[in-house]
Amino acid sequence: MYSFRNDYSEGAHPQVLEALCRYNLEQNTGYGLDVHSAHAADHIRELCACPGAAVHFISGGTQTNMLLISSCLRPFQAVIAAETGHIHVHETGAVEASGHKILAVAASDRTDPDTAGKLTPEDIRTICTAHADEHMVQPALVYISDSTELGTIYRRQELAALHEVCKELGLWLFLDGARLGSALTCPENDLTLADIAALTDAFYIGGTKNGALYGEALVLVNPALQKDFRYAIKNRGAMLAKGFTIGIQFEALLTGRLYFELAEHANRLAAKLTEALVGLDCEFYAPSPTNQVFPILPDTVCTRLAEEFQFETQKQLKDGRSAVRFVTSWATPEEAVDHLIAVLSELLAG
Amino acid sequence: MYSFRNDYSEGAHPQVLEALCRYNLEQNTGYGLDVHSAHAADHIRELCACPGAAVHFISGGTQTNMLLISSCLRPFQAVIAAETGHIHVHETGAVEASGHKILAVAASDRTDPDTAGKLTPEDIRTICTAHADEHMVQPALVYISDSTELGTIYRRQELAALHEVCKELGLWLFLDGARLGSALTCPENDLTLADIAALTDAFYIGGTKNGALYGEALVLVNPALQKDFRYAIKNRGAMLAKGFTIGIQFEALLTGRLYFELAEHANRLAAKLTEALVGLDCEFYAPSPTNQVFPILPDTVCTRLAEEFQFETQKQLKDGRSAVRFVTSWATPEEAVDHLIAVLSELLAG
Amino acid sequence: MYSFRNDYSEGAHPQVLEALCRYNLEQNTGYGLDVHSAHAADHIRELCACPGAAVHFISGGTQTNMLLISSCLRPFQAVIAAETGHIHVHETGAVEASGHKILAVAASDRTDPDTAGKLTPEDIRTICTAHADEHMVQPALVYISDSTELGTIYRRQELAALHEVCKELGLWLFLDGARLGSALTCPENDLTLADIAALTDAFYIGGTKNGALYGEALVLVNPALQKDFRYAIKNRGAMLAKGFTIGIQFEALLTGRLYFELAEHANRLAAKLTEALVGLDCEFYAPSPTNQVFPILPDTVCTRLAEEFQFETQKQLKDGRSAVRFVTSWATPEEAVDHLIAVLSELLAG
Amino acid sequence: MYSFRNDYSEGAHPQVLEALCRYNLEQNTGYGLDVHSAHAADHIRELCACPGAAVHFISGGTQTNMLLISSCLRPFQAVIAAETGHIHVHETGAVEASGHKILAVAASDRTDPDTAGKLTPEDIRTICTAHADEHMVQPALVYISDSTELGTIYRRQELAALHEVCKELGLWLFLDGARLGSALTCPENDLTLADIAALTDAFYIGGTKNGALYGEALVLVNPALQKDFRYAIKNRGAMLAKGFTIGIQFEALLTGRLYFELAEHANRLAAKLTEALVGLDCEFYAPSPTNQVFPILPDTVCTRLAEEFQFETQKQLKDGRSAVRFVTSWATPEEAVDHLIAVLSELLAG
Repeated sequence: MYSFRNDYSEGAHPQVLEALCRYNLEQNTGYGLDVHSAHAADHIRELCACPGAAVHFISGGTQTNMLLISSCLRPFQAVIAAETGHIHVHETGAVEASGHKILAVAASDRTDPDTAGKLTPEDIRTICTAHADEHMVQPALVYISDSTELGTIYRRQELAALHEVCKELGLWLFLDGARLGSALTCPENDLTLADIAALTDAFYIGGTKNGALYGEALVLVNPALQKDFRYAIKNRGAMLAKGFTIGIQFEALLTGRLYFELAEHANRLAAKLTEALVGLDCEFYAPSPTNQVFPILPDTVCTRLAEEFQFETQKQLKDGRSAVRFVTSWATPEEAVDHLIAVLSELLAG
Repeated sequence: MYSFRNDYSEGAHPQVLEALCRYNLEQNTGYGLDVHSAHAADHIRELCACPGAAVHFISGGTQTNMLLISSCLRPFQAVIAAETGHIHVHETGAVEASGHKILAVAASDRTDPDTAGKLTPEDIRTICTAHADEHMVQPALVYISDSTELGTIYRRQELAALHEVCKELGLWLFLDGARLGSALTCPENDLTLADIAALTDAFYIGGTKNGALYGEALVLVNPALQKDFRYAIKNRGAMLAKGFTIGIQFEALLTGRLYFELAEHANRLAAKLTEALVGLDCEFYAPSPTNQVFPILPDTVCTRLAEEFQFETQKQLKDGRSAVRFVTSWATPEEAVDHLIAVLSELLAG
Repeated sequence: MYSFRNDYSEGAHPQVLEALCRYNLEQNTGYGLDVHSAHAADHIRELCACPGAAVHFISGGTQTNMLLISSCLRPFQAVIAAETGHIHVHETGAVEASGHKILAVAASDRTDPDTAGKLTPEDIRTICTAHADEHMVQPALVYISDSTELGTIYRRQELAALHEVCKELGLWLFLDGARLGSALTCPENDLTLADIAALTDAFYIGGTKNGALYGEALVLVNPALQKDFRYAIKNRGAMLAKGFTIGIQFEALLTGRLYFELAEHANRLAAKLTEALVGLDCEFYAPSPTNQVFPILPDTVCTRLAEEFQFETQKQLKDGRSAVRFVTSWATPEEAVDHLIAVLSELLAG
Repeated sequence: MYSFRNDYSEGAHPQVLEALCRYNLEQNTGYGLDVHSAHAADHIRELCACPGAAVHFISGGTQTNMLLISSCLRPFQAVIAAETGHIHVHETGAVEASGHKILAVAASDRTDPDTAGKLTPEDIRTICTAHADEHMVQPALVYISDSTELGTIYRRQELAALHEVCKELGLWLFLDGARLGSALTCPENDLTLADIAALTDAFYIGGTKNGALYGEALVLVNPALQKDFRYAIKNRGAMLAKGFTIGIQFEALLTGRLYFELAEHANRLAAKLTEALVGLDCEFYAPSPTNQVFPILPDTVCTRLAEEFQFETQKQLKDGRSAVRFVTSWATPEEAVDHLIAVLSELLAG
């Protein structure tokens, strides 16, 4: 039974695995101080047009988010995030366990591409205005994700506006790029890695969800965040002994346009699915142009569909329908999507 | 230049890597809920003769230690560890960052195999007696490692005595098995995995230092520690999306006697080196029967040696000599050890 | 300029201060292990009809909340609270700093006495249903306050229903009684201390806001929460050296009905003010029957009023009006309220 | 039975209590923003000859230590303290609960006034040298106490040398002044408040152990530590609602030379006791010139003495003797000391 449950059901892209095999018996310095990590970091700095950035390779996303956030906040400082933000909903309180409150911006009623899953400058201003004295936490960092948890993306102008308001209000701006590949390669996108580096204080380029066995490349753009960061990594248990294995994977992913090609493949198949669903007059829970598709389906259809495919239910609506989520990835065969479309067509026609 | 710096300079044992390649495009459930992890856990429960144990696969050792410790202590409770314990010295305060004090037992003057790097029941009693009221932290968990940071191992009788005193005083007993393979396969050892499961509340079987790319198998023997542990894993950022990759690696390591054969190889080469050093009238910093060798060498010899090999300096003595550390692993070629012996013979003879 | 800003603008009730003076040079055991604290604790157990309760005296409310909550939760467990809850809004992230997320129930649109500022069993069920797996925090404790931050109170039946749902779902129920005196003595109240002890796992009887210089009496009803609690107190820096000074104050407050008489005085004056405002056709932001009064006033009136009285603005509405807060206390002279009424009458008439 | 157990067995000095009574019904702004606190802070800045210092009034010592330390460290940073330091031994892991390791300098064998209970520049250098990379915590703050837990004091030259090494190595220097009054007024002292302000980054002037009901005056000398400190106070539950009560007490203590006179009284009586013990050929556990006296007494004498006085046993020696501790305070009547001397003379003569 084929699974559209997520974009991390398979191992690594064959070229990535091949690189791991190629260097397997080579001796490398531990803890990320190896030549492959250095090389991959150089490549990332180049892509970001940011020679001063510090790049660290971390195993997973939750760890990366918690690590970055706890590293730059004082005990009474808080994070601003969308209500749908991964750190707020799906990280089992990892940020709070490191001592910091998340100030969530209600966003569940946002359905258009400009706001769904996203933060606006106005959101940030409202929270900062409301947190005016020492009896309340002090907002200090804005967390956004691109693509968002609803598959939407930030436009260049939107990110620039967030950057602006953060600078004005003295807030760090951190972008969770677990699905950054998918965001940067979707047709609606007008951002580049260089833009992101110019408009945030820190962000990460996700490997786990785009072709790596594991590994995220955390880019610390702002020099103020770079000091002693390796201490922070180790302190949070996030320093892999064989850190060179992440370096090797990113070297492979960044060879040619592989990283982007993988994401383009995922996006193309998601778009094909979306188009088919539009043709079937399907409504959507969120207007995603990336590799997550959120159709609203009758519960009866969901039940039948679950006999042939794995997928997640995003939300049970109260009207006999549910919003579900299909995720495509670099590993998704086009036939699987075609088959899904065929079954959906039949079920929705019926 | 060959490195004896540690046992995690290479990738994975070829059979482990081969398994990763074999299952690479298979779709697996995320977050460790896959069939490979289940299978490897079953195998571990069998080897431990402990059908009730919970087994969780975690990326690295510091993470595993911090996770287990923080999961079972209340805020005012503390860990007892040897002064040389990894959590006390080399984990950048990860345990303290999770809120808990480490009560270190002075052990730097211990040089015989019965105590070097180890804890004794008397150590534990002394600390518990000294921590008698609520103005001091409450000792609640005993942390030991096998093999220890000095390469020594616990004998069955010693572990049983620790188990006894922990039960009597109401303390958890946790064994860090980053190098458990090396401990269990050295000639002096009389412990089995089943013994360890019977005599501790929790322990881990190290993969990273014995043939895996990454991954430790945390075994929660005591049912009281098992409840909701997956929440704890995620809360600490330690739940790998592609957890199945650790399951696959442990499946491979536990096929036949591979895990133990790899450690035996490392031990045999370390023993060969030790024997040669004894023949050269070398003194040792610690009496290790496992894969770490700690000779004391003249600084002049160290300088010369560093031109041909990488290794770590354990401690600079004040008499023109240093204790150094050579580590062998599954990946160490016998020729590298032979070459090291040859060079040492020449230098020490000179 | 008289201040209605809060109920902690003066020192202690004269009888409380007199008790402190009487015992001033008596030698007492430190850290709350003195006879006065023991005596006051006995008295509280009696009033609560709960001989098995543990009673601890803590300096302040934020400290008490953070201490109790962090003492009974595991790292991945969370608190359910109303959006208006003190721990969520006005404690500068103290609970999060101890590692725990607060799951806030949106309540800003609740305006009737049955729900304003309060939690319902339905709220709790909804949150628990939504937090179903280990990728989300685990709800483990319900925090309520009585009177609430909006001055409303829980009826016996409401508290019993919360108790029921908490028992069913395996949640601790903790009641913040910073203003418990005011709640228990208002005419609408049908709860007793014995009811509260029977229907919660822990609660505190606030001293600071009802006649003490400082001090809250934390009552641990559930034996499971009592173990080693003095360690928790010291661990959070909450164990006062001269703990006997809180014991002495509670002894005095619990002599006769003093504690309740002080709250009755505050309530009576608040009711007088409310009645006058009703007579002036004033709308209210929250339907408080206790010692906080929340009228909605034209901004012009607020400005004029601020020339003669101190008070807090609860919320600026967007229609040229603001919700303000007047607080009465044991120390409020009736003349001050009469004067406030007179000025308001004039301003609102004008 | 008279108690020499500690210096916080009584309430407040009568002049302090009188001040609390005098202002009892005055309305004051909450949370330490009142005129009395402002006035007392001004006075302290003057005494310290440090117009730029920020002064905050905190309830107790453990809270003050934990608050200051956690406020200025990043998660991976550690505190250097003497093994006998209060934060290391007697605060139930409060500093570790805030996330930071304490690196303790072994000091138990130090018996002369120059080192007993104290840190030296050499101690600090040794620790910093040993903590050289990111696999170990990063020393960032030096914690000392004056007088120390063994009653010894720092000389001007010693503090200057610590200041020097801290500046050189980039460490904060924090002085715990729980018994600062006693230190500054003992004959051997050559430090002033102005010296301390000039030679540390932060320190506190203890009220609890020198005449106040509760309250310590935390002085943040270094501007880098001052930013947003009120947030930190509230975040740790350390912001007292009626903060003005501490301000009032310090106003009283700093009127004339009261604070110093109280300490002089305690010191004088301790010196009288010490002199008598010297006359009785008594040995001492620690060479204290301040208000703690640590004679070594035969266990039989201790047993008999315990029938007439309360005191603490510092350490049971293995030779039938114990080191005990007698503490004098502003409240100790000379007759109590005379009586103690008489009984000791009889017992030690016998």
